[in-house]
Amino acid sequence: MDSYLIQVNGPGDHAPLLDVHLKTNGNSMSLGKVKGRKPRWAVRASEMSKKTFNPVRAIVDSMKVEPNPKKAMISLSLGDPTVFGNLPTNDEVTRAVKEVLDSGRYNGYAPSVGYQSCREAVAAYYNCPEAPLEAQDVILTSGCSQAIELALAVLANPGQNILVPRPGFSLYKTLALSMGIEVKLYNLLPEKSWEIDLKHLESLVDEKTACLIVNNPSNPCGSVFSKSHLQKILAVASRQCVPILADEIYGDMVFADCKYEPIATLSTNVPILSCGGLAKRWLVPGWRMGWILIHDRRDIFGNEIRDGLLRLSQRILGPCTIVQGALERILHQTPPEFYHNTLSILKPILMAGILVMTSFRKPSPAAKAVTQASNADLCYAALSAIPGLQPVRPAGAMYLMVEIEMEHFPEFENDVEFTERLISEQSVFCLPATCFEYPNFFRVVITVPEEMILEACSRIQEFCEMHYQGAEGAQDLECDK
Amino acid sequence: MDSYLIQVNGPGDHAPLLDVHLKTNGNSMSLGKVKGRKPRWAVRASEMSKKTFNPVRAIVDSMKVEPNPKKAMISLSLGDPTVFGNLPTNDEVTRAVKEVLDSGRYNGYAPSVGYQSCREAVAAYYNCPEAPLEAQDVILTSGCSQAIELALAVLANPGQNILVPRPGFSLYKTLALSMGIEVKLYNLLPEKSWEIDLKHLESLVDEKTACLIVNNPSNPCGSVFSKSHLQKILAVASRQCVPILADEIYGDMVFADCKYEPIATLSTNVPILSCGGLAKRWLVPGWRMGWILIHDRRDIFGNEIRDGLLRLSQRILGPCTIVQGALERILHQTPPEFYHNTLSILKPILMAGILVMTSFRKPSPAAKAVTQASNADLCYAALSAIPGLQPVRPAGAMYLMVEIEMEHFPEFENDVEFTERLISEQSVFCLPATCFEYPNFFRVVITVPEEMILEACSRIQEFCEMHYQGAEGAQDLECDK
Repeated sequence: MDSYLIQVNGPGDHAPLLDVHLKTNGNSMSLGKVKGRKPRWAVRASEMSKKTFNPVRAIVDSMKVEPNPKKAMISLSLGDPTVFGNLPTNDEVTRAVKEVLDSGRYNGYAPSVGYQSCREAVAAYYNCPEAPLEAQDVILTSGCSQAIELALAVLANPGQNILVPRPGFSLYKTLALSMGIEVKLYNLLPEKSWEIDLKHLESLVDEKTACLIVNNPSNPCGSVFSKSHLQKILAVASRQCVPILADEIYGDMVFADCKYEPIATLSTNVPILSCGGLAKRWLVPGWRMGWILIHDRRDIFGNEIRDGLLRLSQRILGPCTIVQGALERILHQTPPEFYHNTLSILKPILMAGILVMTSFRKPSPAAKAVTQASNADLCYAALSAIPGLQPVRPAGAMYLMVEIEMEHFPEFENDVEFTERLISEQSVFCLPATCFEYPNFFRVVITVPEEMILEACSRIQEFCEMHYQGAEGAQDLECDK
Repeated sequence: MDSYLIQVNGPGDHAPLLDVHLKTNGNSMSLGKVKGRKPRWAVRASEMSKKTFNPVRAIVDSMKVEPNPKKAMISLSLGDPTVFGNLPTNDEVTRAVKEVLDSGRYNGYAPSVGYQSCREAVAAYYNCPEAPLEAQDVILTSGCSQAIELALAVLANPGQNILVPRPGFSLYKTLALSMGIEVKLYNLLPEKSWEIDLKHLESLVDEKTACLIVNNPSNPCGSVFSKSHLQKILAVASRQCVPILADEIYGDMVFADCKYEPIATLSTNVPILSCGGLAKRWLVPGWRMGWILIHDRRDIFGNEIRDGLLRLSQRILGPCTIVQGALERILHQTPPEFYHNTLSILKPILMAGILVMTSFRKPSPAAKAVTQASNADLCYAALSAIPGLQPVRPAGAMYLMVEIEMEHFPEFENDVEFTERLISEQSVFCLPATCFEYPNFFRVVITVPEEMILEACSRIQEFCEMHYQGAEGAQDLECDK
């Protein structure tokens, strides 16, 4: 597969808008004599394109990423479960799309919000007594990214603000800023398994708050909120009359005793746009099949928001029809073992000693993998035992956040420098959590094959032992400054 | 397949922003006591969502569309070549995607601008000495609609303007207005086979003009510009220093003696973003595979526009990877007969007596279809011979525009009423050209099976003969007013 090479320049390195932009290299000079009011070439990128800024790419591109040539690179940075080939999608999923292709019936335009039958299939999949859904409550989108884009675009005007978790997925901010929407970051608490600091959250609400983004299970934290915590979040939204944009793309990707609760099932009044898709649970992120579920049992969004979403969907006309055509079968006929197997591959790394998954009602093929949990246990224990590191145990999704006790690594300015040096010395690439507005942590992706993550942990250990300074050492170094 | 049902409300029917939006139906009243500064639910759709306005849907939805129950509906309205099943894509295209699915190698995230290898395949397909292209000049998008969206979004700021053809594809205006970009319409001339009124075009340019949209071959006109006309358009762009957004989605879909010239092959200085995709030539519009080709041989766009496009592509992360994976094979291994056959199906209807296609170097299976051209000739002749109608002969794409001599149909206010009555009396649905900012015309889609288009023509004839008023009759009715 091709490498991911994107150059991102920061804003502000260009002359102001409408200034003449005269190139000084040979060819362009001859384009027009600069005289009087004669037009000259002055093509500028729009302000919006300059404001569309992806911090992950900006930070990663600015890192001096030269791995140690003596060690094979292990990348724990990309939230793509497919890159190592150990997590293929299910044959049934592939077969469904192939039959759609053979039918020849899904090559034309679909309605911009998706085929009615596909919207019905998604509604049926998520429908439950606590949060009923019909086809008209479903908007199909080009991946969960477009679902989030449309949801933000319909809810917020330039000058309004949205509430976004810190640490949190960078796309929220990228999209909001590009639309002129202000971002207010509310804190997650690592010591409380990344629960929301509810007081902080509520203190940020003002009359310009357009929505609250709740990401559960969380990227980058791998946390899963309990029912009671979700109820407290809903109480804030209800009290402050702020609608919720729920990013639930990792829904159902939870381990062990945790249970994932779709937030809409816990409220009867707060209007919610829930964003999801095939990407993670069905392991096909490249297929770009996402959706918005509209939960609005008190008619607060009303036709206004529904019509707005319909209109916005007409800009690029929805997701690929051959995936749409297969959607009903993908959702309703993928064998349950597939989901269990995915979790069992993630779990041995994660579960660290928890040997039985509650979601296994009876023994399954995945049970075999559980026997390997001692290796995984070793791995997780290894990370916890590394001097100067404090991993936070995840409960779902595909990530794990690790705190760097920076006072013990006085050589390094911050998490970016720490992870940079981890690459150059050990050829292990973890994403610095500055990418998620959370300095002094790094994020580990746990979809990597077990032997690789074990090797990575051992290299991280070597790295930390090399650079760790005990309390005294650190102080010595502090005094030297 | 499902029907296309979208409700579009016009803007302006809602209270101003930030006003309290208190529902009066039972449930919502109980949501909060209206007292003091206590928050109340007031969720409004954004201004942008209200400005995203699709005139085609608005006009069509407002039409009283009750077909005559005694006649089967014939719809000549939708620009989708797949709806009647007479224009399937090629087996090679389908097979390519199926093998990609089997490989399991294209399920993960691609770079947001597309896989490098796919960008190379597109570049190689369009590369020519007059307009060289490399992979870095190609941005893959979710359909041609997103290509146009990104091109506009990178070139224009709110408050700037773009030059758009009249009649023209409605999406340009929909997208521009939603982004706060002004639209200036330049005239096409039906009496000159829909060439651009160049003087009018040039008179519209001002210092706020961000780009000129050139759509060739044209939707809705079915026209194809000659080389010399394209050179004159380029001369205007060059003189006024206005970059071109070329919508070339119907490229190569031309008939008879016409030749399609990609506009970038005729200029060495004007910077051009050419938008295209698989939709029309490969007959898979639902697959949402489009692209932008960046032509910038004088480095006028420079890195600024390229970086802007890269950044904007990161919002929704590009088109479906299983189609991307098949792209090289689709472009380079689809048998040439497939393209010829498509044109031969369109041609008998269109070509009206022209029995030899210049693109056939040697006899092909399509030659057989040509023998049916006498039927098609009758059909085209029928439209021309209908009293009060003036079809404009097309040269490409999938459309034909027909002028209604409104003075001979005094019963009808305009093209919308004319086409409305054509539905209620004859169950034939043509799109009123008011949808394309061009009243008193209607658009006919010519991808319909031959027997249907013949039947439609005969019904249109019956309709017109019923309502036609000669010069005297028309005057009588005029006097009655």
